[in-house]
Amino acid sequence: MTDESFGQRLFSAFTLEKRLCVGIDPHPYLLESWGLDNTVFGLREFALSVCEAALPSAAAIKPQVAFFERFGAEGFSILEELISVARDAGMLVIADAKRGDVGSSFDAYADAWLKPGAPLEVDALTVNPFQGFGVLTHALSFTNTAGKGVFVLAATSNPEAKIIQDAQILSGGSVANHLLESIDTFNALHAPNARMGNVGAVLGATVLLEDYGIDVTTPAKRETSHGAIPVLAPGVGHQGGQLEQMKKSFGSFFHSVLVNESRSLVQHGPDALGARIASRASEIAEFFGRD
Amino acid sequence: MTDESFGQRLFSAFTLEKRLCVGIDPHPYLLESWGLDNTVFGLREFALSVCEAALPSAAAIKPQVAFFERFGAEGFSILEELISVARDAGMLVIADAKRGDVGSSFDAYADAWLKPGAPLEVDALTVNPFQGFGVLTHALSFTNTAGKGVFVLAATSNPEAKIIQDAQILSGGSVANHLLESIDTFNALHAPNARMGNVGAVLGATVLLEDYGIDVTTPAKRETSHGAIPVLAPGVGHQGGQLEQMKKSFGSFFHSVLVNESRSLVQHGPDALGARIASRASEIAEFFGRD
Repeated sequence: MTDESFGQRLFSAFTLEKRLCVGIDPHPYLLESWGLDNTVFGLREFALSVCEAALPSAAAIKPQVAFFERFGAEGFSILEELISVARDAGMLVIADAKRGDVGSSFDAYADAWLKPGAPLEVDALTVNPFQGFGVLTHALSFTNTAGKGVFVLAATSNPEAKIIQDAQILSGGSVANHLLESIDTFNALHAPNARMGNVGAVLGATVLLEDYGIDVTTPAKRETSHGAIPVLAPGVGHQGGQLEQMKKSFGSFFHSVLVNESRSLVQHGPDALGARIASRASEIAEFFGRD
Repeated sequence: MTDESFGQRLFSAFTLEKRLCVGIDPHPYLLESWGLDNTVFGLREFALSVCEAALPSAAAIKPQVAFFERFGAEGFSILEELISVARDAGMLVIADAKRGDVGSSFDAYADAWLKPGAPLEVDALTVNPFQGFGVLTHALSFTNTAGKGVFVLAATSNPEAKIIQDAQILSGGSVANHLLESIDTFNALHAPNARMGNVGAVLGATVLLEDYGIDVTTPAKRETSHGAIPVLAPGVGHQGGQLEQMKKSFGSFFHSVLVNESRSLVQHGPDALGARIASRASEIAEFFGRD
């Protein structure tokens, strides 16, 4: 394992002007548009090609586990291979698995993805907090002991989610805001002097955070006393989010955004994919550099 | 595939006095207490033994996917084998995977677990609605086209969950209540004349539903115009829930409960496990028979 924390590694990528996370979503229509069969062979070819193209210029790759899981054990074999290739090349791997459960079941998911030596070991995992932030303890412990990262769903990019994520908790404020505060409290306690915390949030690029009662104007709390909350923001390409718009709506969360793009990068097929990813990575870095 | 709906199959099991769902949770401490190694070999021995012991008297088995996932692709191979053995013997299999995501990613999870012919095809799946009931559409479609069932997390058995599941939605009422109403509306539309709907809820056995603002006194809506909501209730054994207490707290939801027990059944090892499951299944059936 590395001695660096996940937050440090992500912050280092940002200082090297790497801000782009390449989503690997082997959707049947993408396999078809690449001329590949909708089989594990097509899955493997797609996943490893996107990974190879992303290695020189992306900060991270984010395999969407659902598209591997539909092939059962064989799909997980391909996912293990993808993770291993990417991590051996020094690339951060974020498993977009959105796992959630309670008690020892959630602990087993944390062991599956974050425990050093596990077949599916990655650098960071997306988790679903519907059963409470309090159930995440074992996953969060790997941020302290094994340099891992955790991204907690908070305000996601789809309109159907708002009814739940904007519901008001008993002590006041939205569910999404409660989750951001819980993340911030954890980071303040466990990574008090870091530039960036090890526990982040998934915030949809198209979401107006103020609609969830989230204060986006107060950077001090999140950036001075302790590290910023790393933000994984899906929805920038295909789902219509734009950097300029996100800069406005994310406010003080904006500088710690890892920009995820998936389909918008890969939908034109494998030709010149590396160049396309590099070009987009530069555009994004330039945008943040001007910021 | 069967011509019967999931709700019909579950209702038939209930009329045969089968009410017990045996959870298969191959936790490391259980493998150890069985004298098994914490490896895929131990996993396989445990899972297939519990399944075999459950076949004569249980209504369903419920593998907890997390405990297979920690072994990566090899764990999923064992899960495929377990599912296949159980379904070939006519047993209902509920994958406790609590999958959740959005758009085509959630659709891929639905395909992974509910699409006929998929390697992990089961009879029913637990799903996590944190990204909105509206994202479940593709999974719910399999209840109409392929005889599948879906159990939506609503009010789960752990105390950390209440802050989110009891949050108040904009139009009034708790998140848990909103989910139950959404389930009921779906069943009314798609299974109007059924005794039991195909979409159910996960309600923790130890939960007081009234604390979530859920009306447990009005059976009419849920049982006359259309079928009851099947309820998967974990937490009866190990987590301390009791049938008598559940009968009071569940009210009108009580007759459609599938009682899940896991660790309490298997923690004494493999000896006489079939007899222990059969005895507990009888106790539960007798309790509901008196109801």
